[in-house]
Amino acid sequence: TQTLKIALLPGDGIGPEVMTVTAEILAGLVSRFQLPVEVQSFAWPSHSWHQQHGQMMPEDGVDQLRAFDAILLGALGDPGPIDDPQRYVLSDSISLAPLLALRKELNLWACERPARWLPGAPQYLADSRANNVDMLVIRENSEGEYSNQGGRLRAGTPNEVATQVEVFTAGATERLIRHAFDRARQRAALRHTPRHFATGKEAQVCLITKRNAQPFWGDLYTETFARIAREYPDVDTHHELVDAACMKFVQCPWRFDVVVASNLHGDILTDLAAVLCGGPGLAPSANLNPADARIPALFEPVHGSAPDIAGRNMADPRATLMSLAMLLDYLAHKHPAIGNAAQHLHDLIAEDLKYAFSGTRETGQRLSQRLAAG
Amino acid sequence: TQTLKIALLPGDGIGPEVMTVTAEILAGLVSRFQLPVEVQSFAWPSHSWHQQHGQMMPEDGVDQLRAFDAILLGALGDPGPIDDPQRYVLSDSISLAPLLALRKELNLWACERPARWLPGAPQYLADSRANNVDMLVIRENSEGEYSNQGGRLRAGTPNEVATQVEVFTAGATERLIRHAFDRARQRAALRHTPRHFATGKEAQVCLITKRNAQPFWGDLYTETFARIAREYPDVDTHHELVDAACMKFVQCPWRFDVVVASNLHGDILTDLAAVLCGGPGLAPSANLNPADARIPALFEPVHGSAPDIAGRNMADPRATLMSLAMLLDYLAHKHPAIGNAAQHLHDLIAEDLKYAFSGTRETGQRLSQRLAAG
Ligand SMILES: CC(C)[C@H](C(=O)O)[C@@H](O)C(=O)O
Ligand SMILES: CC(C)[C@H](C(=O)O)[C@@H](O)C(=O)O
Repeated sequence: TQTLKIALLPGDGIGPEVMTVTAEILAGLVSRFQLPVEVQSFAWPSHSWHQQHGQMMPEDGVDQLRAFDAILLGALGDPGPIDDPQRYVLSDSISLAPLLALRKELNLWACERPARWLPGAPQYLADSRANNVDMLVIRENSEGEYSNQGGRLRAGTPNEVATQVEVFTAGATERLIRHAFDRARQRAALRHTPRHFATGKEAQVCLITKRNAQPFWGDLYTETFARIAREYPDVDTHHELVDAACMKFVQCPWRFDVVVASNLHGDILTDLAAVLCGGPGLAPSANLNPADARIPALFEPVHGSAPDIAGRNMADPRATLMSLAMLLDYLAHKHPAIGNAAQHLHDLIAEDLKYAFSGTRETGQRLSQRLAAG
Repeated sequence: TQTLKIALLPGDGIGPEVMTVTAEILAGLVSRFQLPVEVQSFAWPSHSWHQQHGQMMPEDGVDQLRAFDAILLGALGDPGPIDDPQRYVLSDSISLAPLLALRKELNLWACERPARWLPGAPQYLADSRANNVDMLVIRENSEGEYSNQGGRLRAGTPNEVATQVEVFTAGATERLIRHAFDRARQRAALRHTPRHFATGKEAQVCLITKRNAQPFWGDLYTETFARIAREYPDVDTHHELVDAACMKFVQCPWRFDVVVASNLHGDILTDLAAVLCGGPGLAPSANLNPADARIPALFEPVHGSAPDIAGRNMADPRATLMSLAMLLDYLAHKHPAIGNAAQHLHDLIAEDLKYAFSGTRETGQRLSQRLAAG
């Protein structure tokens, strides 16, 4: 059997805390299920690495990671508190650069964020139908509003003009939308109880744009979507403007299946979707290159590094554990034991949801005991 | 007494229906309170005007409106259903152009959307503290993501590149943020029961950006906000990334006071805020030029023209009626009777919320009868 390599990047803020718990559970799964898995942990990318080396990660960091089968990231970003001049302060743009760099340089162009509410999770919505939410938001992860083009002309003066250029390409749009249709089909095929959309079809893709105010890429998305939809006559199609979609995520989230959105719209909608599932402490995500299986996928919780609560045992590690479960699902086809471990971890987390969150370490201990026990 | 002139623009889709009800109530208020008000209704801007004249409004439309003291708009935008080739189809960019043109050409650079939940309104959130929500989202209304700059290179080919350029200027940023601080102060002064924010201050402004991924204007906003905040030591300041803000609007909306955001972020956050207040049928808005009292302000419901339900008696006219109440508040300083009429209308609507929405006309009739009765 080929040994699979998993890289753990704890990162910043609450990242190391949630990763400590997750690494322990992963070790438990490896020994219990005899997984053919080798785990390596990295001190970068991180704020503390920056303090020692003047950069967030080694020059060849991305290349080192290419040798792995999958990567699990805790969280990134720690500017340091602006009100403490003694502290080593790093701008967001430096401290978050590795996250955007990993996504872009590894060419992980699709970000998948599933949203399902599990019994026991906090319920923010009044309507109990929201407990049936079962959607997958697929976010463009390589360009668009995150192209980092533009600048500040006459910065800091009363005549400043700041521009931020959103760049969208046909190639990235087409592969994204096609992937959304493929995933919608797959999900429908795997569903135990079929769902039925307006047209009686069992799968749906909802496209998000703001084409009434941002026509240039709105039209590119709309036309590409219409063209590709013709290849998937079994999949129902729908469009929502991003503002209306946010409203409907709160009013009737159970109506959505696969949602496909640009980088920024996807960022916003997945944070909202995370709340529907009980909050950021319970929302996992995957950054993938669905077209190239050799590129390691990167898994991370939807939440950020939350430096304000770092080191205080206040971060729910279950979003990272759920991300690990997604990672194991992703590697499951490589070895049957990995599929079993993934399923076991999903079950452990689902069972653990009956406990309200009471501390990072407490959650870790409870899960470790369960894992050791049964 | 000077006669005040109010322009009514019913617009498209459900706009004419909700405006019919609103015009009737306005007429009732004028006669009951002897308001020194002259009302004029326009068939433009609208899709049907476009069918007759080949444009959404007359060339001098904006200039005609400049002569008014305030404008009330129903809703705009009616592309016609894409699946009915017999119908006269208009692209979003044409059918919505007048809305963006009115905001821009009249230089209505601030959009204010208050969010308060009133007893009887639908409750989408589970936590009853959400009933105490009392915020004001102030949206930039003149530039940013809605600058309509950019285009499509090699449109429709596999090598297409679409760009959408976000343009932000120091002047527009400064006036917007200053206005937000002014409004926060005013709101605190008018509040019967003081609110206390983290720092013990009685007012707060929360700035929204996505500066970790969109640094150019994110930094302009952040620096401008920090500079202006020093002039308002009595106002607490806060910052949220737009994705986190969306999450918190659902998790703990009662924590916000004044929220200031860019054009697109404001669009998204105000739709979410509308849901907090019971949905788009109950959310009013104002487009203002706070620096120039001669420019007529434009009031409109947050909802769109919803062509899918147009003509079916399904649109709640109360968002437009609430927008009329905001309009009367805005003109109240011109004549005491207008303030009385505004108050009466607020009360009528609040009382009417005990009735679940059952039809556009039914709501109108009930309110007219109340107005006539007492
Ligand atoms: C940290 C930030 C740049 C990032 C993003 O916007 O992509 C985060 O919000 C996320 O959703 O993963
Ligand atoms: C119709 C559309 C262009 C408009 C906007 O985005 O400004 C609407 O959503 C609104 O919020 O007033």
